[in-house]
Amino acid sequence: MATLQDIYVSAAITLLSAFAFLVAFAILRLQPINDRVFFPKWYRKGMRSSPRRSETFVSKFVNLDWRTYMKILNWMPAALRMPEPELIDHAGLDSVVYIRIYLLGLKIIVPLALLGFLVLVPVNWTGETLERRKDLTFSDIDKLSISNVPDGSKRFWAHIGMSYVFTLWTFYVLYAEYKVVAAMRLQYLASENRRPDQFTVLVRNVPPDPDESVSEHVEHFFFVNHPDYYLTYQVVYNANKLATLVAKKKSLQNWYTYYLNKYERTSKRPATRTGFCGLFGTSVDAIDYYSSEIRKLSEAEAAERDRVMSDPKAIVPAAFVSFKSRWGAAVCAQTQLSRNPTIWLTEWAPEPRDVYWNNLAIPYFELSIRRLLMAVALFFLIFFFMIPIAFVQSLANIEGIEKVFPFSKPLIEMESFKSIIQGFLPGIVLKIFLILLPTILMTMSKIEGFSSLSTLDRRSAGKYHLFILVNVFLGSIITGTAFQQLKTFLHQPPAEIPKTVGVSIPMKATFFITYIMVDGWAGIAAEILRLVPLVIFHLKNTFLVKTEQDREQAMDPGSIDFATSEPRIQLYILLGLVYSAITPVLLPFIIIFFAFAYLVFRHQVINVYDQRYESGGSFWPDVHRRLNIGLIISQLLLMGLLSTKNIEKSTSALLPLPILSIWFHRYCKGRFESAFAKFPLQDAMIKDTLERATEPNLNLKAYLKDAYIHPVFKGSEPERPQSIFEEENNPLVPTKRTSKQGSEAGSSHGS
Amino acid sequence: MATLQDIYVSAAITLLSAFAFLVAFAILRLQPINDRVFFPKWYRKGMRSSPRRSETFVSKFVNLDWRTYMKILNWMPAALRMPEPELIDHAGLDSVVYIRIYLLGLKIIVPLALLGFLVLVPVNWTGETLERRKDLTFSDIDKLSISNVPDGSKRFWAHIGMSYVFTLWTFYVLYAEYKVVAAMRLQYLASENRRPDQFTVLVRNVPPDPDESVSEHVEHFFFVNHPDYYLTYQVVYNANKLATLVAKKKSLQNWYTYYLNKYERTSKRPATRTGFCGLFGTSVDAIDYYSSEIRKLSEAEAAERDRVMSDPKAIVPAAFVSFKSRWGAAVCAQTQLSRNPTIWLTEWAPEPRDVYWNNLAIPYFELSIRRLLMAVALFFLIFFFMIPIAFVQSLANIEGIEKVFPFSKPLIEMESFKSIIQGFLPGIVLKIFLILLPTILMTMSKIEGFSSLSTLDRRSAGKYHLFILVNVFLGSIITGTAFQQLKTFLHQPPAEIPKTVGVSIPMKATFFITYIMVDGWAGIAAEILRLVPLVIFHLKNTFLVKTEQDREQAMDPGSIDFATSEPRIQLYILLGLVYSAITPVLLPFIIIFFAFAYLVFRHQVINVYDQRYESGGSFWPDVHRRLNIGLIISQLLLMGLLSTKNIEKSTSALLPLPILSIWFHRYCKGRFESAFAKFPLQDAMIKDTLERATEPNLNLKAYLKDAYIHPVFKGSEPERPQSIFEEENNPLVPTKRTSKQGSEAGSSHGS
Repeated sequence: MATLQDIYVSAAITLLSAFAFLVAFAILRLQPINDRVFFPKWYRKGMRSSPRRSETFVSKFVNLDWRTYMKILNWMPAALRMPEPELIDHAGLDSVVYIRIYLLGLKIIVPLALLGFLVLVPVNWTGETLERRKDLTFSDIDKLSISNVPDGSKRFWAHIGMSYVFTLWTFYVLYAEYKVVAAMRLQYLASENRRPDQFTVLVRNVPPDPDESVSEHVEHFFFVNHPDYYLTYQVVYNANKLATLVAKKKSLQNWYTYYLNKYERTSKRPATRTGFCGLFGTSVDAIDYYSSEIRKLSEAEAAERDRVMSDPKAIVPAAFVSFKSRWGAAVCAQTQLSRNPTIWLTEWAPEPRDVYWNNLAIPYFELSIRRLLMAVALFFLIFFFMIPIAFVQSLANIEGIEKVFPFSKPLIEMESFKSIIQGFLPGIVLKIFLILLPTILMTMSKIEGFSSLSTLDRRSAGKYHLFILVNVFLGSIITGTAFQQLKTFLHQPPAEIPKTVGVSIPMKATFFITYIMVDGWAGIAAEILRLVPLVIFHLKNTFLVKTEQDREQAMDPGSIDFATSEPRIQLYILLGLVYSAITPVLLPFIIIFFAFAYLVFRHQVINVYDQRYESGGSFWPDVHRRLNIGLIISQLLLMGLLSTKNIEKSTSALLPLPILSIWFHRYCKGRFESAFAKFPLQDAMIKDTLERATEPNLNLKAYLKDAYIHPVFKGSEPERPQSIFEEENNPLVPTKRTSKQGSEAGSSHGS
Repeated sequence: MATLQDIYVSAAITLLSAFAFLVAFAILRLQPINDRVFFPKWYRKGMRSSPRRSETFVSKFVNLDWRTYMKILNWMPAALRMPEPELIDHAGLDSVVYIRIYLLGLKIIVPLALLGFLVLVPVNWTGETLERRKDLTFSDIDKLSISNVPDGSKRFWAHIGMSYVFTLWTFYVLYAEYKVVAAMRLQYLASENRRPDQFTVLVRNVPPDPDESVSEHVEHFFFVNHPDYYLTYQVVYNANKLATLVAKKKSLQNWYTYYLNKYERTSKRPATRTGFCGLFGTSVDAIDYYSSEIRKLSEAEAAERDRVMSDPKAIVPAAFVSFKSRWGAAVCAQTQLSRNPTIWLTEWAPEPRDVYWNNLAIPYFELSIRRLLMAVALFFLIFFFMIPIAFVQSLANIEGIEKVFPFSKPLIEMESFKSIIQGFLPGIVLKIFLILLPTILMTMSKIEGFSSLSTLDRRSAGKYHLFILVNVFLGSIITGTAFQQLKTFLHQPPAEIPKTVGVSIPMKATFFITYIMVDGWAGIAAEILRLVPLVIFHLKNTFLVKTEQDREQAMDPGSIDFATSEPRIQLYILLGLVYSAITPVLLPFIIIFFAFAYLVFRHQVINVYDQRYESGGSFWPDVHRRLNIGLIISQLLLMGLLSTKNIEKSTSALLPLPILSIWFHRYCKGRFESAFAKFPLQDAMIKDTLERATEPNLNLKAYLKDAYIHPVFKGSEPERPQSIFEEENNPLVPTKRTSKQGSEAGSSHGS
């Protein structure tokens, strides 16, 4: 077991590396050459332009003003300065609700830590079991934990009582937060300006009709069944092949620019090879080769575009149907149209940016089969992922590498190098798998057939949460692979499982403290440095950028990766809840993580991230559910731990907690969840009435005409969605927000 | 273990008693005096009148025509003769779908039995394990069961293979049946004539408004949010006190009639006492006493009626809101109205007869608490019901009885009588509890706050199903109370539970065969005899009937008791599925039960039962879910049993079955369930359009005016609902059904 000394050491190392990241960030962000990496959001908003124009040559790239270096930490207050309503305006509701999860973590854990230190730490400290048993090695941390209380002691009733207080406090915070988020969402939906998705419903599984095309069938069906409200429709083309062509052409164009730049610099015509990656095949003049390839591809693209537009088979049995009013769309999205509930399926149309076009045409039965297969696959992935990893590890040995890359033989044969490879290789294989895991999970969600990016993100997060729960949380507490755990659990009485896990919990406190520091603290510090986008931007900037517009595209603001970040927050809150009654000393480490992460993500949301879509915080029910699961797990583990301590009736005393938690979950679900799935008719009616009064002559049909066209048909238009222009140009209700300039100045260049 | 001999004996006894019931039924039903007991449905429909008028005095009471006695079994073909569409017309869809459950049982079990006898019985019979082990006692039935196959034999693969065939066949039948029932329901809803509930939505949790009464608030809200479709509304009065007064008055009137009849017969003015049940208190003249009491109560009733109608506090925050078209009602019932999803809750209005008036005013939070409490109570009822029973049993001994009824002392002290009481009393206490159980469960469902009788029945059935599953099925297989089982299960590995139960399954086959005969066969035979209604009718007929209308009311046709009958069908299908792969010999007994029950219930539905409400078969999703649960239980138990037989990979070979079953359940749910919860807009639109064309001048507001008035306000009108009159007088689409007379003649008096 690690002693306090060990923790001091690892804390020092982590703090040092985190500090190094922060200093690097503070210096790099002040260099004008990095401006587009650390403030892309402002560029996207058109509120910041290259600082290089008006200055001397050197100061275009390096900041020479020494005064700004004095204030390397002043991004922190700047990140907190922007008020929430303005932040919603600036970055969207999704981002704001996301950073509220960190705040929620603080709200739950801080009072738990205070109470834990005031009540439980003294109770544990004076327990003095561990000091009497000199044969056991124990750390100072264990003296503050529940292990220090003798078996059968009445002191445990303090822990039982506090676990009730902790649960009730968590209920209160969760309930209040759900209420706030639901209100924010409804407020956001009600106040936001006209958007195409407010009037539009996605209709899937249009049944085939022998006499009518999909378009005619949709039009007739809605004319008959929604006569008073139906306005227009937009069919969905199967443009997957076209999208591939467009993507390929873009890549070729990048190469073309690259060689053109090279030619300009060296004045020597560059050559390339026609084979794989320009490595094999006959040598040709690169510029000619790529320009001819691009020409060929342009022709193919035009032909495919014509085919898709004219071929009735390219129309998939799905459509975006628009209504004359929000009320009509709300009615259609919430009701069942046909007798057969597997055809004419309606749901709210996602935002145009949010649509995942490839999945719109899957019939109901196939969807059902796909979900079954993915559920089975997920089970195997979670419990058996070690098997293929071990197989690859056995292959990836020295001999294997020598076979594939014979030229590296002399290097590898060196004794010192050999041992390093043999030591690190298995770890690297595992690390590569863990890096690939979110992509694998996202692919599984795509196979499941969801039709919007936001749903895909939510479903991937659910899968990743399960993986972390089984393989990180349980896997760290009980040694052995997940499959071995599963086997143990199946052959153990259900009442024994919380005991087995619960007993190991106090012993793992020091491990989790180190984990929080290394994965949490250092991870967040690395997040703000944006090392990968920084390197990629400079590579692109050097080789591919010709015009200011190219530079615009080279800048990749990225977006919050909900599918991987949220399940990790859940892990930290789970640790906080589990250890709150057992080893409260762990909580301050979590609190520092949440406070730091809140600060960093608020900064990133203001200055960096540009969300791909806006779902209005629709992921909150998932967050709430997983928090509740964490709460129940912590209660069961405490029950298991206490049942080994010889306290009479501890199990019965704690049993109401999980029952209450399940009830609380159901209550909150009934109370708030529909705010995230349905749109109340009352709100729709208010907005319709207001709009009719302010803009009686609005041509809605023209407004909606091109809203839901597959992005490849929009050609070379900028990717910025129509809706944002509309919002800015035609605010339905004029707002009186203060200018964004103040906040922008505050968070840039340390003014 | 029972041998085949034992089964022959109990089969003979059961068959004899069942035959006795049938003969009694065949004779009693031919007596004119019993006509109203055995054919009340036809009286209710107004298609049969008392046969006593036109005949001689004796033949008014006794049937003297010897020829009719020759044909004592011809009710059976008569019961099968009425075709299904006509039966729906005659008895409603609920009854028809209910008797289809018996048919479904046959469809599942008959092929299972055939395959079992063709494949598994020979495999088991030639296994010869039991014959070699002479030390064990075994019955002939066990030789046909899986116990006769030696451990580790390859023969078990026949059982594994057949369990796949059985599962797939069950899937097929369940899927086909769900499809048929869903189609029948939609067909029924689409073809049925105008009914108030088609246009009406029940709105609950109307929020309080400081400036407006509930009525004004409802009217304004719907005027604003459904401007094009809103028609009218009907507030709900809290008339519980008034209903109590009306019921009390009716009881007094019965007593008054009773004494009046007595006076007429004896010409001596009867006396009664004013205290409890006429047993205590001062003696008074009965007729005067009751007539004055009735007068007093009538005044109180009138005062209360006025108070309810005028006092705004008597209006509960719920209302029945009607729309101009079915489309408008369908839209309102399926959408969310308010931002706050716990107010303005809308759902389809139940039929006027189906409304459970007491529960309309419960706020959302209270509902949620009530459901939590009832869930906990149900858990205790299922697992700990033996504790209060044992307590009452310990009280209900000889001394206790002597204390309460001192006069019975000499009788009880007799030795022979004493031993009988001591032997039977505990059993009687348990039996009384089991008879009361459905009432207890129904009360619990009422406390849960459901707003229609059909939902109450469905929820009670769910609770009873759980009780039977734990206490009858598991309780018979594993001896010991449910609580002991629970304890065992908690302290056993999850993989062991199916083993523990599965191993005992083959040994309990003979027990369940006896159970099926005694509870199933004899129970059904008793069902057709209608002993309790027979006795009650004759008592009422003798003491309370003065006019033909009184006789009409004395006749109690009753209705199918869905809440207790359906879970018992589930038990038999569960037994069939469990034993299909283990002891196929059991299946014919179940087949006989289902065939006989189908016949009997079809007869009862045609001639006797008069349903209290018509829900359009909305219970089918529950039936389907419980059948699926039974299927999964049978698969898990087979897995458990085979895992003790030393067959390699048997568990892995069977594991796909429960996974497939869960997937099948989800698929069917997605595919069909919405037909039972929602009303498709397409159908609503078709009916609206048709109606607008055929009856352009319909005054819908007048039609709906009094539809949803609390029954006590309808005063002394006959209880027959308005809607049926309407249906008969104004058929929307004229039907060409053949006259009901033919079928009526077929099933009465053996023509």
